[in-house]
Amino acid sequence: MTQRFPSMRPLVAALASLVWAMPANAQVTFSNALVREMQQVQEAALKSDYAYRQVAYLCNNIGPRLSGSPQAQTAVEYVAAEMKRLGLEITLEKVQVPHWVRGIETAALTQFQGQAPGTTQKIVLTALGGSVATPESGLSAPVVVVNDFAELESLDKEKIAGNIVLFNHSFDQQLAATGFGLDAYGQAVGYRGSGASAAARLGAVASLVRSVGGATYRLPHTGALRYAQDAPKIPAAAVAAEDADLIARLSTQGPVRLQLTLTPKTLPDTTSYNVIADLKGSEHPEEIVIVSGHLDSWDLGTGALDDASGVAVAMETAQVFQKLGLRPKRTLRVIAWINEENGLAGARTYVERHQADLAKHVAAIESDLGAGHPIGFEARISPAALAQLAPVSRVLERSGAGIRRLSENPAPDLGPLIPLGVPAFGLLQDNRTYFDYHHTAADTLDKVNPQELAQNSAVMAVLAYALTNSPQPLTR
Amino acid sequence: MTQRFPSMRPLVAALASLVWAMPANAQVTFSNALVREMQQVQEAALKSDYAYRQVAYLCNNIGPRLSGSPQAQTAVEYVAAEMKRLGLEITLEKVQVPHWVRGIETAALTQFQGQAPGTTQKIVLTALGGSVATPESGLSAPVVVVNDFAELESLDKEKIAGNIVLFNHSFDQQLAATGFGLDAYGQAVGYRGSGASAAARLGAVASLVRSVGGATYRLPHTGALRYAQDAPKIPAAAVAAEDADLIARLSTQGPVRLQLTLTPKTLPDTTSYNVIADLKGSEHPEEIVIVSGHLDSWDLGTGALDDASGVAVAMETAQVFQKLGLRPKRTLRVIAWINEENGLAGARTYVERHQADLAKHVAAIESDLGAGHPIGFEARISPAALAQLAPVSRVLERSGAGIRRLSENPAPDLGPLIPLGVPAFGLLQDNRTYFDYHHTAADTLDKVNPQELAQNSAVMAVLAYALTNSPQPLTR
Repeated sequence: MTQRFPSMRPLVAALASLVWAMPANAQVTFSNALVREMQQVQEAALKSDYAYRQVAYLCNNIGPRLSGSPQAQTAVEYVAAEMKRLGLEITLEKVQVPHWVRGIETAALTQFQGQAPGTTQKIVLTALGGSVATPESGLSAPVVVVNDFAELESLDKEKIAGNIVLFNHSFDQQLAATGFGLDAYGQAVGYRGSGASAAARLGAVASLVRSVGGATYRLPHTGALRYAQDAPKIPAAAVAAEDADLIARLSTQGPVRLQLTLTPKTLPDTTSYNVIADLKGSEHPEEIVIVSGHLDSWDLGTGALDDASGVAVAMETAQVFQKLGLRPKRTLRVIAWINEENGLAGARTYVERHQADLAKHVAAIESDLGAGHPIGFEARISPAALAQLAPVSRVLERSGAGIRRLSENPAPDLGPLIPLGVPAFGLLQDNRTYFDYHHTAADTLDKVNPQELAQNSAVMAVLAYALTNSPQPLTR
Repeated sequence: MTQRFPSMRPLVAALASLVWAMPANAQVTFSNALVREMQQVQEAALKSDYAYRQVAYLCNNIGPRLSGSPQAQTAVEYVAAEMKRLGLEITLEKVQVPHWVRGIETAALTQFQGQAPGTTQKIVLTALGGSVATPESGLSAPVVVVNDFAELESLDKEKIAGNIVLFNHSFDQQLAATGFGLDAYGQAVGYRGSGASAAARLGAVASLVRSVGGATYRLPHTGALRYAQDAPKIPAAAVAAEDADLIARLSTQGPVRLQLTLTPKTLPDTTSYNVIADLKGSEHPEEIVIVSGHLDSWDLGTGALDDASGVAVAMETAQVFQKLGLRPKRTLRVIAWINEENGLAGARTYVERHQADLAKHVAAIESDLGAGHPIGFEARISPAALAQLAPVSRVLERSGAGIRRLSENPAPDLGPLIPLGVPAFGLLQDNRTYFDYHHTAADTLDKVNPQELAQNSAVMAVLAYALTNSPQPLTR
């Protein structure tokens, strides 16, 4: 999961006022037989360790899967082979993706109040995805600390020119700890995305952002940055929260100077793939329900939570259908998206290539908020359509995932589908610890609880089973 | 805090059976006036931010303070100047300390099941203190995973020779989370201390240990290792728990090969100092009560918990006495020990130099288990002497620190004093999160809660006030 703007809390009022093209007779109904099959699917998913084995393989045997990397390519091949083995029809959909490669990343305070002779203080940081490099020997400049864009704008340009700017905007850990991690993320992520260009416009030579994420384990959180067209590209990195505190504190005492070396490279765009695997519908093969996660990850950890888990629960949906011999009436389409993290090229490409079919895309589901206990799902659909899915939530309630709510933007890879009218669903997880690990080296297999992952599989599989087998397609 | 053997839980029965040379008339008593002064001391310590400012300066302005480093020297000078400013008599006691300097430390799995072509998996690790280096270009060898010494010994020498051994003994996080971190630590730390030599005896080319500590944030925990005389010295490092899991899992699937580069250096021993600062007693200046922490730290973090906090609460004791104008009857001796972490040279040197005075050392207190809420103190004294300190605990109860118990080894720097009969006291903290940060890059100022630190100051100051002012010295 990289970013979703603006605030993700359901804006029920705003959504309710939208005009939805809903035929009057399009009431979705669920027979008792269908509900029983949904329960079968749920039970099979809860018992299965298939999804966990997929996460384990992607993380341990393949590793980090940043777009353009050999690991991303191997992951594409792995998922395709695995879905083929389950009997699905495979399409590898070509996607041009960026190919950015991390290099050396070191930093140290070389001047500060009280320093012992000949010493520096190490600063823990990591380059933001897409950052340009410093000179190979690094750069050295004073640091100016600001808390937000307003404070930056209030400073004279001479105070910024030639300096390194540190955006020290705190991630709201209290908000995250109470379950609103996406809100905390939304409040802070703008500095990661746009800070470098804002600083560069005022002449800064590099831009640092306090890591966007929780925890206090001196972990820098990477993530994408977007260089604006109207600003020079300057090197940009995220510092660990502890290091942001240190710089901020020392800078109240006197001048603080930083030596910074970042040597990432942006290589030519490369060809990668969305993995598309179809389990053809028995009655309406042209009608499609997508289940998905994104296959690419950041390069620091092994992307277990973000988002091998999402891919794995989508794969599990197909596995459960096949194992139970429950061929869906509509086509179940498993997609492992590429390049969610730094470009969304996979999702954009899909929309371009499938323009003609999108009217027949009954729904699209993605899981990209970790693998914590699922509490339900959120959807960009009409309130009336949401209400019709009450029987699905009643099934999901049995595994503690009965929440069903509206959202403007339920999942990042579904963003490009939304303007084209495709009903979009995102799994909702308990994400109270998700942002502790998000985009860090610590996003590794051990963070995934096998039981909780199976609970996520059950949500995706039940929802997909309902949407592929309801007598009527979901109202759009 | 580096290590305390054996298990630290109070062995009351064993201690009670020891013969203590206790004069019959040496009952320690506390007058009402003295208790009121102890309460004054407590209140002043609880209100003061002096200790926190000391921790902040040592961590932020000086930084990591490994023995032999310029930062350790600056810290010595800082503490001495600060204590002099408070009116204490300063002695810098020369100590020969090791001077080990960390270098490059990188590792990657270069062979494992399923790997993408041309890729490796990064392994997060850190050299153990005192480790020898690999060749500058690194070394490459298969990894053999063992869970404990018994498993290592059970393997044929040919299975170990030429390999890298990983001791994958888990730190018992459950035990640590329930407050028995020292027990969990004691169970696991043997592999860090002795693993390298055990592996080297069987021909291993390097030794890895699963990090001894809690948390799941991919943090390697450094610490001292002890090379045995009868084994070749091989490079040794601690891997993050996640990386130990990864290696262990992949090694069940096929051969795993690691490329390891460690370039630490052991420089010649250098001269450092115990900082000794005396507030002379008004009635019995020759009788001494030590309050202390250790000034050196590991080099990855800034040693806020381990043990700037201990030094700071000892300094605070003097500050409170001076501020209140409560000159103690016996001499209060603040000591900032050097080289606790990798040698204990400071404590050993003190005992050598003060042999003649030790009979007049009424007590020695150290804080070296972090800065969490204090629950009381533990002591290596007779059960009868402990009972006589009940009034002290009654005062400390007011700030939630009323526990008073026996222990074989209450604090590491006091270890050398114990065989010579000096009553030794250690502060007891809530240490449920201490081992999450212990010996890692994340041991930084933000981990210290100012209020909890002040509570620790209050425990040390009250105990020290009681011991310097009781009409009778504590029975030995």
